Amino acid sequence: MAKKQLGPTTNLFPMPAVLVAVKTGEHTANILTVAWCGIVGGNPPLLALEIGQSHFSTPYIEAEGCFTVNVPSSSQVVGVDYCGMVSGTTDPDKPATCGWTMAPASKISAPLIVECPLNLECRVVKKVDTGTGLFYLAEILETHVDEAVLAAPKKINAGALDPLIFTPDGFYHKLGERVAKAWDAGRALKKA
Amino acid sequence: MAKKQLGPTTNLFPMPAVLVAVKTGEHTANILTVAWCGIVGGNPPLLALEIGQSHFSTPYIEAEGCFTVNVPSSSQVVGVDYCGMVSGTTDPDKPATCGWTMAPASKISAPLIVECPLNLECRVVKKVDTGTGLFYLAEILETHVDEAVLAAPKKINAGALDPLIFTPDGFYHKLGERVAKAWDAGRALKKA
Repeated sequence: MAKKQLGPTTNLFPMPAVLVAVKTGEHTANILTVAWCGIVGGNPPLLALEIGQSHFSTPYIEAEGCFTVNVPSSSQVVGVDYCGMVSGTTDPDKPATCGWTMAPASKISAPLIVECPLNLECRVVKKVDTGTGLFYLAEILETHVDEAVLAAPKKINAGALDPLIFTPDGFYHKLGERVAKAWDAGRALKKA
Repeated sequence: MAKKQLGPTTNLFPMPAVLVAVKTGEHTANILTVAWCGIVGGNPPLLALEIGQSHFSTPYIEAEGCFTVNVPSSSQVVGVDYCGMVSGTTDPDKPATCGWTMAPASKISAPLIVECPLNLECRVVKKVDTGTGLFYLAEILETHVDEAVLAAPKKINAGALDPLIFTPDGFYHKLGERVAKAWDAGRALKKA
């Protein structure tokens, strides 16, 4: 195949489309859509997440040292996109605009989005200064999941969860068909 | 919806399924499958990636200070799974086993997987010690993309790329249907 060089880019496929929620007052919260995040550790579970320093949510993360990562289902796409387009400065009550309910987390002060089938409670453990940038490293302290999407006591069925997928060409997608089982399909290449 | 708490977990949906390639000798390379990674910066483009310290590839990353991240298409799933199951200690020539060709990168010593439609040249800028873990932060120096998946001079069509998606329930998926356009669908909730 003929290839073209595009220079330095952020073209990772796929990306998640998650909702980061922070506490902004006694009974108020802000929600920010983030695609630049990933798991970077398992013991303890760690998540890395880029949030621009100029964002409305940033001082609240700094003050509280925590946020929740809420994994939406594909049916929530309009609210997901809205929370990535409109700042909390313009709309101080994005949860109400999106028709979502905030509920207390169990281990941190940032609230959970009830309507999202999966919620991760995250405590910031490190702000990573890269010289030209900055991102947060957070420990996942608790996982809340809709019982309806559990395939086993601790196993989430991805198809039932129906997560939203973001791609750098600017579209949200549903999860497609299963093509293989992990730690299994590769056996075909194993030498006897 | 009734929710259940699962404790601290790494349940982020979706995850990428990418192939990390390193140079292991003058004409040899190793390939490692990674799902724990994400973009964490845009200027310059930064990628965070977890690679266990005991992995075969780790000393080569340490020695060369670089790796490539190769985004496979869904048709490459057997090789992708194999490279996540079998160590370079057992198979010192995984590229040959998978039927893949390695080619020189333009800015780093780690090689590219020719058959992958998208390749990112990454230089390690920081090894992040989290107290209990360790991961790499890398700057993306160059992007190589199959011309056939370009929708515009610098825009990759996600559907044409046909990336592989990993979900923590242990399955690989194709990208599903588009559900909305980003920075557009959310307008429906904007106040006049």
